[in-house]
Order: sequence, then structure tokens, then C-alpha cells
Amino acid sequence: MRRVAVVGIGQSKFGELWEKSFRDIVIEAGIEALEDANISGEEIEAIYVGNMSGGRYLAQEHIGALIADYSGLAELGIPSVRVEAADASGGVAFREAYLAVASGLYDIVIAAGAEKVTDVGAELAVDIMSSSADREWEYFVGATLPALYALIARVHMKEFGTKEEDMALVSVKNHKNAVKNPKAQFRREITVEDVLRSPYIAEPIKVLDSAPISDGAAVVILASEEIAKKLTDTPVYVSAVTQASDYLSLQSRKDLTSFRAAKMAAKKAYKLAKIEAKDVDVAEVHDSFTIAEIIAYEDLGFCEKGEGAKMIREGETEVGGRIPVNVSGGLKACGHATGATGVRQIVDLVRILRDGIADAETGLALNLGGTGATAVVSILRR
Amino acid sequence: MRRVAVVGIGQSKFGELWEKSFRDIVIEAGIEALEDANISGEEIEAIYVGNMSGGRYLAQEHIGALIADYSGLAELGIPSVRVEAADASGGVAFREAYLAVASGLYDIVIAAGAEKVTDVGAELAVDIMSSSADREWEYFVGATLPALYALIARVHMKEFGTKEEDMALVSVKNHKNAVKNPKAQFRREITVEDVLRSPYIAEPIKVLDSAPISDGAAVVILASEEIAKKLTDTPVYVSAVTQASDYLSLQSRKDLTSFRAAKMAAKKAYKLAKIEAKDVDVAEVHDSFTIAEIIAYEDLGFCEKGEGAKMIREGETEVGGRIPVNVSGGLKACGHATGATGVRQIVDLVRILRDGIADAETGLALNLGGTGATAVVSILRR
Repeated sequence: MRRVAVVGIGQSKFGELWEKSFRDIVIEAGIEALEDANISGEEIEAIYVGNMSGGRYLAQEHIGALIADYSGLAELGIPSVRVEAADASGGVAFREAYLAVASGLYDIVIAAGAEKVTDVGAELAVDIMSSSADREWEYFVGATLPALYALIARVHMKEFGTKEEDMALVSVKNHKNAVKNPKAQFRREITVEDVLRSPYIAEPIKVLDSAPISDGAAVVILASEEIAKKLTDTPVYVSAVTQASDYLSLQSRKDLTSFRAAKMAAKKAYKLAKIEAKDVDVAEVHDSFTIAEIIAYEDLGFCEKGEGAKMIREGETEVGGRIPVNVSGGLKACGHATGATGVRQIVDLVRILRDGIADAETGLALNLGGTGATAVVSILRR
Repeated sequence: MRRVAVVGIGQSKFGELWEKSFRDIVIEAGIEALEDANISGEEIEAIYVGNMSGGRYLAQEHIGALIADYSGLAELGIPSVRVEAADASGGVAFREAYLAVASGLYDIVIAAGAEKVTDVGAELAVDIMSSSADREWEYFVGATLPALYALIARVHMKEFGTKEEDMALVSVKNHKNAVKNPKAQFRREITVEDVLRSPYIAEPIKVLDSAPISDGAAVVILASEEIAKKLTDTPVYVSAVTQASDYLSLQSRKDLTSFRAAKMAAKKAYKLAKIEAKDVDVAEVHDSFTIAEIIAYEDLGFCEKGEGAKMIREGETEVGGRIPVNVSGGLKACGHATGATGVRQIVDLVRILRDGIADAETGLALNLGGTGATAVVSILRR
């Protein structure tokens, strides 16, 4: 496997994009990425697209071909592959694109992620997002995605003394970070009181513990080291992208206080990148619900098991802290356009590493599918 | 890229499988493939699953994780990736699995394809299958998948004198072949008169020109050459798997009488496999509608452009003819379980090559998505 770098990034705004179609936002992000990489579309050799549920949101499958067509790349006939792993679809697309370049098969490949969610309304969107869990054994008996995360939160609170206030702090931090992100959905600060006073969706999870439903697209362009060096003075190298699976339904898992797939993917990623958790300078993690960010600290080895809440309480993951997490605003405040999120995390990590924010040299992204049956961990270095 | 072989094949029956769930048929095919390869599940390192529309057929996304879970492989935590390219999903899954082994990343990988269609009824199934075409520019104005293929057939008839009788002959041949296939949906012969007397769906396409909607699953196990030689005396080597894209909607294409993506993928596959069209001994092609098989003969170079109808008229693609096509019965008679079809084609090619039917040494599969915006061509050799 040869070295691979990210040479271009692009992203649409995340949010309720009533005036734009799915096709529009993918192209918007794609053009931005091509301009950033300073290459033309003809140099792209393959496309991988992460999309969770085009079938239900748009009544459109064959999303890879759609994007090849609307981006003008169908004329070249290049392969375009849609991958789906619920809201880890973007992370999986990034991984497949990375492997396609690392293996030597292609020199320049696009990884895209996109979802247009809000057109269907919140009720149907929750139904669709809940199809990331086990439909027969979870959703059919009433367990939506928030309800499943509520179970996880309850167990974590019981085992480790994690409080609703701790979860609220995650939301407060991520909202604060999003103020500086022009692409974010919610660019306003909130307080712990705001979170605690917001209505319960599934106790102990409240509205302001939950990522919104969002429209959005993100694109990264990957290239071999040789080509990356010609294209840019600031390549960001991909040290590892790993993926692991866990049982789909919570009932089959031995432990609800951690995401086993995240731990497995992280362990393998650290090994491949030849680093340890303490070497990570900055991270984008999957805070679809605030409890998931607290668990991510533990699963990724940023702290000991059970000490995630302590980390947020002590400000270690704030910008300026030991390991800034979700500088973008995370899923909570930047927005969660399901299939796009995993690629959006990479876009933000690359931006942070290029700009030298907090002198960061090593960044990590953790993207989960549903309640963690799929996890993708990416490690990038400048 | 190193050599890769198929070492195990498995398939559920194709048809209206009322008594079985999506999960059941995937596991059934998977167990058959593992037994055929004489390995245990623990030796599998990754899973690629082709599935077109789990979201709409099953209200279930996250299909990769579902299959890892139900096959018992989630315990190992191995990556499981769903890919989607309409009814080319299976072909794309086979290609990604092939690349994962060819690149040296993994030694043993599963490519699966599955779809459970019939539970939703025919009307919704046609709607869902039509989402493989351009929803905004084709289906919303009334063009279902059969209507789009009817346009293609009309142009082919006008340009090259292809007759409805010629298309009927494809159906008759494929039904005849399916009689010998225990996994096929329709194991009975039909006559040209039966086809011509069947009702029009979209003139000139009739019911008996059209592949049925089917439930079904297929699994192949791929291994590196080194491992394949230890596992089996009859490895079937993968000489090439190529994929190409075309414009999604017909209005954007310059020529409706051929599938440009199929031609591009075939050209590249022949080059990689270092063979020519005349070296192909047997083929499984994408006869979602009978006109597509006639065009496939031309696109794959089995005959000159415009002479596809002549090939079927002269019996060249019958078993015993120059190049037997769809010995399995094809999509028309074996059945078309959308996401499974591309993998099912490989299962049948491997069976034919192993058994030495018609002394075949080189087999080719052509899998199309929708009206051909995605094409995957695979070449296998014993």
C-alpha cells in the first residue's frame, strides 16, 4: 500500500437547504474540491459516494451514476460506486476511495458524501434514520434511534456516574465551536441551562443533546503521494482508515457503555499509523447524541474507561484544551447530513491541519453508523 | 495486483419466497458458499454486499452491518460494506471484493448480493425498480423502466430491423435453459407464440420479454491465488472486473442502440484479461428485457453492430451454439433479484466453468444498472 494524501476539500453549507436539490449540493461541494485541488474533472479516475437513503429521501437509487452524470464525469465513463452504512456511509466512502489509491489502482479519486433529508419532514426523517438500527428487533417494537441512545446513556450514567449536565456540556462546546464555522447549521452559543430545559425526546436525551437533521454534501479528493506533491504544498497524508462491525441490535451486545466497533477500528488505526492515542492532536467524532461523544473519548483512548464525562467537565476537549474535539461544531452544531457526515469530518480535519490550528499535526475522525454497528476511524497527518 | 480466484459459490432459489425473510436467504446462500469453499466463517476478512433498495423494500438500511450480524461475523468485527448501483449492485460488490483481494489488503473476502422484492407487491416494485433511472427527468414524467427499454427497443428495431420475434427468441432460449437450473424461478419452456401473445407492458415490450421481480441471494468467496490452490482443485480465476458509467437519463445519450458503459467496460476487461471477444466461450448477460440481451451481443463484440438479432435467430447463443448465453436462464427465467443478480451471474459462470459445460474455459458476465448508466464486466477463466 502506497502513501495517499488529501489534495482537495469542498463542502456545501449544512442545514435546511430548501432552495437547493440533492444534485445541486453535491455539485457545489465537488466544484469547491476541484478548485481547491486545482485540477479539472477529467483527472478524476473514480468516484465513491456515501449516501444513506436516497431511495427513501429522494425516491432515487443508482446514486453513483446520478452523481457521475450531474458532475459531468459520465462522459469519461469512470466507475462511480455508492456505498451505504447508515450514517457511517461517508466514512466508508472515504475508506474505499483511500484503498483505491493506496492499492495503486488509481492515482486521483473522489470521495463524496451527500444527503438531502429535510424535504421529507422530521417524522419521516426519524423513521428513516432509525432504519440504521435493526428494523425487526428494535424499530418495529418502538425503539427509535434516540430511544436506543437513551438506553446507552442510562447504562453509562449508572455505571460511571455520568450526568445529564455532562452531556449538556458537549452540546455547549460544540455550539460554541460552530460559531466560527461558516458552513455550520447552528452558529449560536447555548448554555447548559438551555440544554437541560429543552424537552426530552427519550429520557435522558433531550432535543439539545441531539444532532439535527440536515441537508449537506462534502467532497474530498485523494491522490497518490507523487501526484499530491505536484499539486500542493500542503498535502495532508492519510495514515490509516479502518472499519469494523458490531452486532446491529443492542440486545446482542455484551456491553452498552462502549462501541466495540469503534474500539476495534481505533486500535487497528493506531497500529497502522504507528501512533498512540496520546499522539492525536485534534479529533472529529460522531456526536449524533451527546453521550456518543463522551463514549468516543473513552473508546478512542483519550481517557480511561468511565472518565469521558470528566474530560468534558475539565475542558480537555475544548479548543485550547489537551485534545480539541469537534472544532467544526460536530454533528450537533455543524449539522448531520447522514451520508455526508463522514466525509465532512475529513474536510474539517484537513482544514484544521492545513491551517495549523492549535499546532495540530495529527487528526483523527470517528464516524459511526446507527448505534455503532459500523465504525470508521481515519488518521490524517500534515 | 495479484491473481484472485473464486473458491466458493452459494445461491438461494430465486423466485417468490414468501416463507423466507431477507436475512434467511442471505444466510442460506452464505452457508452454501462456505461449505463449497470448505472454510469456516472465521476465515472471512471482509464482506461486500450488493443490495439495491433495502430502504424501500425492507425499511432497513445499514445492510452491511445487518449481514455481518446475521451471518455471525459481527463477533469478528470485520468490515462489511454495502454497495448500490441499482441492479448492477451485485456486479459492483463482486468488483470491490475482487479489488480488495487483488490489492493484497485481504486474502479471503465475501461478495454477496441480495434483494427481497416480492413482499411489497408488483406496483410498488416497479416504482422502486424505476428509481434506477433518473427520477426527476424520467420517472416523474411517466417513464418507468419498461417504458425506457421500449424506447431503446424501438430505435434498435428502426435502425437494424430487429423484430419482436427476435426478442421473443431470447425469452424462449432463456426459459429453455432454466429448465435445467434447480435454482431458477421459471423452469418451463415457452414458445415464440406465447411471448408474442403476452400483453404489452410498453410496446414493443411484452410481459414475456421482461424479467420477473424476484427474491434471491447469491454469495461468492474470493481468495488469493496462493490460498485458492490450497483450498480447491478447481479454482476459477478472475481475469478482470471492470466498471464504467454513462449518463443516467436516456435524453443525454447520443445513441440508444447500444450501452456505452457496457462497451467501455468490455473493452477494458478484454485488455486486462488479454483476450478478445472471440475468446469468450460462455456468457451471462443482463437480459432485464430481451432487447438488452440482443444489444449485449453487439456491445460485447460477439457480433457486429446491428447483428444481434441475427445471432439469436441463427441459434449461436443456444447451449451448443458458438457462444452459449444465459445458460442459467438469465434474468428472464432464472429470475432477477435486483441486488443479487450480478453475483448470481458469477455463481453460474463458476459452475459452468467448473463443470466444463460446452468445454468452456473462459466466461464473461455483463451486469447493468437500470438502463445501463452502470455496467460491470467480469471475465473468469478455469
